[in-house]
Parts: sequence; structure tokens; C-alpha cells
Amino acid sequence: MSTQDQQSAPITSEEIFAKHEGGKLSVVAKSLLATRRDLSIAYTPGVAEVSRAVAADPAKADTHTWAGRLVAVVSDGSAVLGLGDIGPAASLPVMEGKAALFKEFGGLDSIPIVLDTQDVDEIVRTVKLLRPSFGAVNLEDISAPRCFEIEARLIEELDIPVMHDDQHGTAVVVLAALLNAAALVGKDLAGLKVVIAGAGAAGIAITEILLAQGTEDVVLMDSRGIVSRERDDLNEIKAGYAARTNPRGLIGGPKDALEGADVFVGVSGGKIPEEHLTELAEDAIVFALANPDPEIMPDVAAKYASVVATGRSDFPNQINNVLAFPGIFRGALDAGARRITAAMKLAAAKAIAAIAEQDGLAPEHIVPSALDPRVAPAVAEAVAAAAQETGTAQGTATA
Amino acid sequence: MSTQDQQSAPITSEEIFAKHEGGKLSVVAKSLLATRRDLSIAYTPGVAEVSRAVAADPAKADTHTWAGRLVAVVSDGSAVLGLGDIGPAASLPVMEGKAALFKEFGGLDSIPIVLDTQDVDEIVRTVKLLRPSFGAVNLEDISAPRCFEIEARLIEELDIPVMHDDQHGTAVVVLAALLNAAALVGKDLAGLKVVIAGAGAAGIAITEILLAQGTEDVVLMDSRGIVSRERDDLNEIKAGYAARTNPRGLIGGPKDALEGADVFVGVSGGKIPEEHLTELAEDAIVFALANPDPEIMPDVAAKYASVVATGRSDFPNQINNVLAFPGIFRGALDAGARRITAAMKLAAAKAIAAIAEQDGLAPEHIVPSALDPRVAPAVAEAVAAAAQETGTAQGTATA
Repeated sequence: MSTQDQQSAPITSEEIFAKHEGGKLSVVAKSLLATRRDLSIAYTPGVAEVSRAVAADPAKADTHTWAGRLVAVVSDGSAVLGLGDIGPAASLPVMEGKAALFKEFGGLDSIPIVLDTQDVDEIVRTVKLLRPSFGAVNLEDISAPRCFEIEARLIEELDIPVMHDDQHGTAVVVLAALLNAAALVGKDLAGLKVVIAGAGAAGIAITEILLAQGTEDVVLMDSRGIVSRERDDLNEIKAGYAARTNPRGLIGGPKDALEGADVFVGVSGGKIPEEHLTELAEDAIVFALANPDPEIMPDVAAKYASVVATGRSDFPNQINNVLAFPGIFRGALDAGARRITAAMKLAAAKAIAAIAEQDGLAPEHIVPSALDPRVAPAVAEAVAAAAQETGTAQGTATA
Repeated sequence: MSTQDQQSAPITSEEIFAKHEGGKLSVVAKSLLATRRDLSIAYTPGVAEVSRAVAADPAKADTHTWAGRLVAVVSDGSAVLGLGDIGPAASLPVMEGKAALFKEFGGLDSIPIVLDTQDVDEIVRTVKLLRPSFGAVNLEDISAPRCFEIEARLIEELDIPVMHDDQHGTAVVVLAALLNAAALVGKDLAGLKVVIAGAGAAGIAITEILLAQGTEDVVLMDSRGIVSRERDDLNEIKAGYAARTNPRGLIGGPKDALEGADVFVGVSGGKIPEEHLTELAEDAIVFALANPDPEIMPDVAAKYASVVATGRSDFPNQINNVLAFPGIFRGALDAGARRITAAMKLAAAKAIAAIAEQDGLAPEHIVPSALDPRVAPAVAEAVAAAAQETGTAQGTATA
């Protein structure tokens, strides 16, 4: 078989399980321990000098242990991929994959930490107790609405970058894609009418990032329809968004939401019937991101929209978090940032968009390939610069 | 400089800090993520098959994630080397070194987990919540008497091997050395009069392993003297040992304890004046293990003892935990053992002793070199066999 054939051959279960045998990660020592001398430097008695130095000056833990640049990939297994609440052990293959991506794209060491609890207080407490073990926290596959409180509390209570990737990684890449899609169809981002189907982790974070960069007409939908001030069945978080979104006061279902909309972003998995798309404005944009089954298939969406994206690697314009998280964490750690701010996320989105733009925008090319090696370094640089500017870098933070 | 010269040149602080820059460990992916196909196998969508399989059959977490053979090196930084309670961050260089040794000698992946609490309940709770993240727990540098309760509760409440290395790693190597030293001087181990100076983690565990293998006359000392039934200042744990040791009912200080003793084991750091050694029996054995400053220097001890060992690599007969822990954990994991039993520890000690014996015993050669590559595999094999025999291996355990 040629390399080309191997690449295009269907992936079998046997192949997947074989590649997962024994797990996907390994911990290695950076230098050999072959001689007594090596041992005396890396372990006793030499290591005592380093421990004493850290005890005297805690900042040395950042420079003379791996913790300063180590990312903990933390999950409770409550919302894993499209599989749902499969628990911590079953989430581990995903977290190992994530750690492998951190290394491959961000050049960062990371370890999966999967927790045998779904209690918000216990998760927060546990991660705080683990704090000296690492330098950043990537929360992963934690279900809404618990993920919002867990992230908010950890950001508040820890002095290191914390980000729930299912929220913000997705939101950053969606914004990057939308920047380029809007440019292609000649519409101004701030003036877009955007419908977001799915009020979970990703939908809420996409709403936040769009509001943060100036888009005013965002309409959020959950499984019961448009999130509006008229609804009395909303939890506290959705009620908050009912007040901050939907400025035209829409009520009803997807058909009502889509009437005249410039952008549809699906992060729900709920199917959208083709006839609803007839309601879209001219030169519309459809991001049907449910994986593996998009809310509407791209060939159908293309009849009603000028730009279409999905979450799948076998269609054009794949919205893949890997474009964002390795560079965001790398940039935050490079800058010594204590937090990942809205400015840093916007900078990441613009950096991703800029790379696709460099190669020439087209309806089937609004984001770079998930494997593009230019992306993470560019994102890291932009994020680090934004951290410096907004004063979240270490030494300049006021809080 | 020749390799020989480099090996013998004094180790400078500059060299030690340079080798610790950025930490000593790295996490790597076992296979490349260079192509879209690689990504589809190791991450989405392929990984979902593995997650689903683990959700359906939790045993697959042991075979298809790294957790099944991953050792967590857990510390609270409360009793680090000879440095004492320097806290979790300052303990991390030691834990990284330990993880490097696990890889080098045991071929096992391990991750340092340092906890920002010294509360027994919180430590136990946290390690239990982390359980799905790893397959064994090496407790490290946790102060006595907390270490006893933490270890006992984790052994009881977790279904994976848990061992506090400062206790049992030390005890196993001391027993290995004592087996060979006793053979050299022609004394029977069971009949030895043994004095152990230091009733902390190591002293208690050495007492336990000696009692377990049949030595009856063990006298434990703490900073206030001989642990005896006459004392009313003992904590609960020491009071328990007062009842189980010291069969001749000795009272007093080191001089009283050493009168007629066959073996002195120092794990306290407290100095022993030379004149006390005159009390020792003929053909005595002295293990002065405090590091870097032995309770008595080996050239002095040699005037009164036929066999002398220390904890230092620059004297003969180094009692070094690295002879034990990599092989003990490797053997336990190879056998699928749920616990590290007394039988497994005894098997480890005998395996270590046997390797020194193969090379020919001598007063200056009672244990193998800490770097001897034969040791860990031999220990692992012996420990795994003991696990199988005593039914602690998975599937055969009754509890």
C-alpha cells in the first residue's frame, strides 16, 4: 500500500484498539540516570539543594520543576464527546488524546486527571489541593451547567490559567471562522443576526465571545426553543442570557429564530429540517458542528448558505478545538499569565483567522487545517501579547 | 576531561540547578499525531470507540489507558529527605526524581502528585477521588505518625497497590542487607538482638518487617530513649510497639539499648557517640542510615562492628530505596495485585539479597549497587510470584 492508500484506508476498530493498548502517553526523564553521578544530581543528595531553593523562594517551582509549564487536563467524565456521562475512567482515553495534542501542537507537557466525583465543591476543592502539581488547568468534558460554576470558581480561587476547553476552545475557533466567513460574504460582524442552537457549554461560550467582540443580535436556543425573557422554565444561567441576548424579543422555535438570520451555529446535535433554512437571510453562514452527525448535512446547507462549516474532518472548514487550546495555553504560560482573559481569547481567534486569510479565503477555506503547524505558535504569540497588554502577565497583575 | 574524570569531578550547585531547569520529566505521546488519520485514531472520532468500550467494561481502563500501570507519586511535602516539612512545591523536585527512577529502573510511567494539605482526611479523600487516573500509589515523604494512618486507610479503601516508600522501601532494603550481613557473621536472623534508633516512618516499618520474618528481640528507640511499657509519654502507635517489641523490658537510653546488641540500625539522624558502640556484641552489624550525616561514620563504626552500611553512595553498602520500590511496584502491577503484602515485601528483600550473594558476599558487599540493572527485574519477578501465591493478584483476591 502506498502512503496515500494507507492514509485513505478506512480506520478499523482493530486498529483503534491496537493503538490504545497500554494507553497513549508515557512519562520520560529528560536526562539519563545511568551513572551514580546522574543519580546524585537528579535525586539524592543533589535534589535537596533544589528543594531547599524552592522552599526559600516558591517562584523557583515554576522554573526548576516541570509544574510551572505542566497542564492538568481535568475531567469528571460527565459530558464526554457525544457520549455523555460515561464517567472518569471511560473519559481517560479522550484526556490522553488531549494530552498528546498539547504536546504535538503546543509543545506542552500535560497529564490527565480524571476525578471520581461530579460534586462541584469536591471538584473545586480537589483541583485546588492539587495546585502545586501543575501550572495550568484545562477543564474538559464537564457537563453544563456545572462546568460554568467549576470554571468560574477555579479561575477566581487559583493563581494559574484555567479554561474549560469545551466552552472557550470551541468559541474561539467559531469566532475565527465567523470572522473570515463574514468577510467573505461582505457583512459586518457586529451587525450580524446570529442564531445559536444549543445552550450548553459551547453555546454559552460562543454567545459570550460574540457579545464580547460586539455582535449584538445573538439568539440562543435550547431544546425547548428560543431563550427569551418570556420563558419561565429557564435555569439561572439561561435566564441571565435571556436578559443579555435576543434583543428583538423573539419567541418560538427554530423556524422563528432562523427568519432573516445571517448565521446559524449548531452545537446541540438537534437536527434542523431543510425547510427551516429557507428562512435564512441572503449570503447566510451555517456552522453545523454536532459530531459525528451535523445538525444539517453540508451539501444541503450549501443550498441556502454561502459558507458552511462542520466539526468533521472529512468536510471542508472543520471547526476543531485543536486550532485553539494548545496555542492559548502555550501563550498564557509563556507570558506567565494568571488568567485567560476575553482579550486573550479574541487575540487567539484573530490569529487563527489570519492564517486562513494568508492562504486566501474561499467559501471552503475559512479556517486552517487542524494539522497546520503554523497555527499554535501564531496563537501562542498573539495570546502572550494580549496577556502582556492587558496586564494579566505575572508581575503586572493587580489582583 | 575523560569520562572517568567527569564522573569523579565534584558536583557543583550550578550543575544541579542547570539539570533541574524546567523540571526533570516530560510527557510524550507513544505514537505520532502527524496525519489526519493519526488524529482520527488517537482523538476524535476513533477514541470514542475506546471510551465506549471502557464504559461498558471498566477493566478495559487497565489495558487501554495508561492508568492501569501508572504510579502516582503522592506527597504533602511534610517530611522531605532530611529537610523536614518544606511543603508540596518544594517536595516536587524529589518526586520528579522518584518518577524518573520508576521509569529508569522499573520501566513504569509515574506522575508526581503533590498536595496542598497536610490533613489526613483530605489527603485520603483526594487520592481516592483521583483513583481512576492511575493504577498504583507510591506515598512519599509524609511525616509520621500521619503517614501510618494515610497509608492504612488508602490500602483499605482503594483496590490498587498503595505503599509508603519511606516506610517499606527502606525496610525491604534493610532486611535484604541484614539477611546477607547475618549470613556473613554466621548469626541466625531470628535470634538477633536488634536496636532501631528512630521510631518514625522507616524505624516502624523496619520493626514490622523484622517481626514479620521472625526476629523477636527488636528494641525501638525514639529521641527520648528506649520505647518500653514503662514509658507514659508515648503516642498510640509507639505504645503499640512498646507492647510488641523490647521483650527483655529494657529501659533507658542508647547505651542501655546497645548493651549486647547484634545489630544497630540508625534511621533517626541522632548521633551515636563512639563509646556506646563498645557495648555491642561481638561480630556486630551497624547500619547508620541517616543521610547525608550517618549516626556514626563508617570508619569509626568498623572498629566495633564486622559489617557496616550507610545511606551514602560514597561508602560501601549503600542502603538505597531504589533497590526496592521500582521492582516492588512493577511486580505488583505485573501480577495485577490489589495490595502489597508482607509476603511480597519479604520476597523483594530476598531477591535483592540474592543478587549481592551471587556476586560473592563480603563485609563491604552485602547489597547490590543502586544502579545494578539486574535488581528491579529480579525484585519484580519475586514480588509478582509472591502476589500470585498469596492470592492478592486480581481475580484471586477475596476481599
